Amino acid sequence: MFEKILIANRGEIAVRIIRACRAMNIKTVAVYSTADKHALHVYLADESVCIGPPAARDSYLNIAAILSAAKGTGAQAIHPGYGFLSENSTFAKLCRENDIVFIGPAPEVIDRMGNKSQARKTMMEAGVPVVPGTKEPVHAPEEALAKARDVGWPIMIKASSGGGGKGMRVSLSEDDFCEQFSIAQRESVGAFGDNTMYLERCVMNPRHVEVQVIADTYGTVVALGERDCSVQRNHQKMIEESPSPALSEEVRAEMLDAAVRAAQAVGYTSAGTIEFLLDDQMNYYFMEMNTRVQVEHSVTEMVTGTDIVQEMIRVAAGDPLTFTQDDITYRGHAIECRVNAEQPERGFLPSPGTISQMHLPGGNGVRVDTAAFDGYEISPYYDSMIAKIIVHGRDRTEAIAKMRTALEEMVVVGVKTNLDFQYAIMENETFAAGAADTSFIDRFMKGEV
Amino acid sequence: MFEKILIANRGEIAVRIIRACRAMNIKTVAVYSTADKHALHVYLADESVCIGPPAARDSYLNIAAILSAAKGTGAQAIHPGYGFLSENSTFAKLCRENDIVFIGPAPEVIDRMGNKSQARKTMMEAGVPVVPGTKEPVHAPEEALAKARDVGWPIMIKASSGGGGKGMRVSLSEDDFCEQFSIAQRESVGAFGDNTMYLERCVMNPRHVEVQVIADTYGTVVALGERDCSVQRNHQKMIEESPSPALSEEVRAEMLDAAVRAAQAVGYTSAGTIEFLLDDQMNYYFMEMNTRVQVEHSVTEMVTGTDIVQEMIRVAAGDPLTFTQDDITYRGHAIECRVNAEQPERGFLPSPGTISQMHLPGGNGVRVDTAAFDGYEISPYYDSMIAKIIVHGRDRTEAIAKMRTALEEMVVVGVKTNLDFQYAIMENETFAAGAADTSFIDRFMKGEV
Repeated sequence: MFEKILIANRGEIAVRIIRACRAMNIKTVAVYSTADKHALHVYLADESVCIGPPAARDSYLNIAAILSAAKGTGAQAIHPGYGFLSENSTFAKLCRENDIVFIGPAPEVIDRMGNKSQARKTMMEAGVPVVPGTKEPVHAPEEALAKARDVGWPIMIKASSGGGGKGMRVSLSEDDFCEQFSIAQRESVGAFGDNTMYLERCVMNPRHVEVQVIADTYGTVVALGERDCSVQRNHQKMIEESPSPALSEEVRAEMLDAAVRAAQAVGYTSAGTIEFLLDDQMNYYFMEMNTRVQVEHSVTEMVTGTDIVQEMIRVAAGDPLTFTQDDITYRGHAIECRVNAEQPERGFLPSPGTISQMHLPGGNGVRVDTAAFDGYEISPYYDSMIAKIIVHGRDRTEAIAKMRTALEEMVVVGVKTNLDFQYAIMENETFAAGAADTSFIDRFMKGEV
Repeated sequence: MFEKILIANRGEIAVRIIRACRAMNIKTVAVYSTADKHALHVYLADESVCIGPPAARDSYLNIAAILSAAKGTGAQAIHPGYGFLSENSTFAKLCRENDIVFIGPAPEVIDRMGNKSQARKTMMEAGVPVVPGTKEPVHAPEEALAKARDVGWPIMIKASSGGGGKGMRVSLSEDDFCEQFSIAQRESVGAFGDNTMYLERCVMNPRHVEVQVIADTYGTVVALGERDCSVQRNHQKMIEESPSPALSEEVRAEMLDAAVRAAQAVGYTSAGTIEFLLDDQMNYYFMEMNTRVQVEHSVTEMVTGTDIVQEMIRVAAGDPLTFTQDDITYRGHAIECRVNAEQPERGFLPSPGTISQMHLPGGNGVRVDTAAFDGYEISPYYDSMIAKIIVHGRDRTEAIAKMRTALEEMVVVGVKTNLDFQYAIMENETFAAGAADTSFIDRFMKGEV
């Protein structure tokens, strides 16, 4: 086992990783920007190295400085956390070249899953459902219409070079297809100088359901259940839970199998997440794979009783997982709320500042992951998360009730937070019914749900 | 199910019970002394009633005031927590007479277990091992010696009317028996005017191991594993864990069976704890039964995934338990440290005062139960507990490592605490080896372990 690990991250995930190392009696090295000089992860680590000024590109994305900190402190491995360099295959490669273990999958695997069209192809070969669509690019409207009949309506017409919604149109039926195709193609030519298009079935009222997998270097791949992360604002998750209230046992089993096949197909090691879209007919489609630990891994830990970060470290050290699929049992229901310093009523505008006082919830089945404390500054340089509140109940109803209590107990003075907003969701009937899809927050804010 | 419950307690256990009620959507009524006007349980409850001045006998032991608060607020049941009125059968009886449900066993059962000699007799009849000793009182030295031969040495000679160590002597062998008996009897006559004596085998190097049971009104009795509470100071528990590191699987199974028999023998309902002494030969002897929830119930919740307080409420409402013995599985290892405002180096002298600032530990497998907050006053009127820190690990080694981290992360400013003392125990080799018996703290303080 490693004797010393460097954590190339900050905030709650850095604290989370340090705690995992300490539970395993591994020494830790924190890195920090000058803005984080007094941060909790610096205080908790055995050693710490300043890696640059506040801007992330100069510090937490500064590969040279981080590798140099690892070399200088004798760290044998680096845990990248999430965000920052966690899915940067160049960084993973440079770690390897410097004889430092990158705690995550191999750089080749990161690349294979990072390229969306290659990932889609790999998944299809592995028999994992992807959103039905054209396999090859299309150019002529008539050719496109013929392909569209295979894909099925409603259809998303997308420019291959597209981005930011440009060159993207929805066709609701065969009647409007050629018109919408032409509009989208003209937009694409205008914006990108490229008339290459492709078609994808529209997933209606999708939910975001993802499967946590973890794999070791001995060929064991284990699925640790799924998470429903449909409650999102600006494409960022706000509430996550496990199990998903939308799945039948049959579809759940299928999705878990598909996720394991997906991981096996790319020779995956370490923790990873296969994200699916789930439509209102319980069809699921591969969206992407995140090749790192995720913010919401904690809800999975609550229902499975595992420690995903510790297992990542074990796998990276060449040890087998401490469990097989048969050892995994699911207990109750877990929900996580991300408590952010932000103003929901102003488009979730971040509200940086100093937390003058904070009181945390607690009790049976309440887990708090935070790097904040009395006097902690939420820096404008980084994300606005204050804490993750995770609750566990015997069923979903109890978990929601516990979350209400936890949110009410939590006190944050000094910055604006989304605590009241999260509380209102916990009181919402659509959410309580398990019927929130990815449009939930928009509709919630318009008073439609 | 009840609509409203009054909590006849204060501090962390009152907060604990309120949280359980909220998870079940039950309204709560807090009662408080004038010293607790700004306490957390008052803040968290739906309603609150002042029941008297600071001294417990005038407030938290004030039966009339508490019953009147329950009547006035329309509470259908009272949860007594631990301490105070929790094992007062008169209170339980008065609840019944006032048509208020006492959340605990029937008053007759409280009495039956509260009377130590009757409890001992009941246990013997149920086939539960008790410390070998005389069944009838003895008076003459020769008669006593004959009986002593049946009991076996070393022997504790005790005055029937004894207390505070008066009239108590240890005989190590037959040689010194008559002499020690005479001394003890003379002391008893001198102190209590009574020459009635009894004999009990000395349990050598005992550990304190207790079994948590819970029973409903339909005859289901479930054992929720055991707790090892051998680390005590001044006969008060300081560290508790589950499972006990001292038990073989075989003896554990026997003890759990014995505890279930004990509960069945008295027609027990609600949560209760059968306390045993365990000697260094793994013999166990019934000590007493606590007919209430215990401070350390939380370690059992961590390893079994149950909610003991919620189950107590369900049972009191006439509902069956949500599990049977077969549903209970044990996951990992849990340890609890009681963080007290006290000075270990001064005989654990309480250190009341105001907590100006507090930072709590967190993360995977860390549970905090506290009623304290920034600005909270540890009152000299009540116990000195600041918080219970409970950690859960996949095994005992990991749990100890996590507890070290949690204790280190915790910050309490304004009062003296036993945090460093608890940390030192977590670093101690005898404790780490699972070899601490009830003499551990004495020997630890003398530097003998």
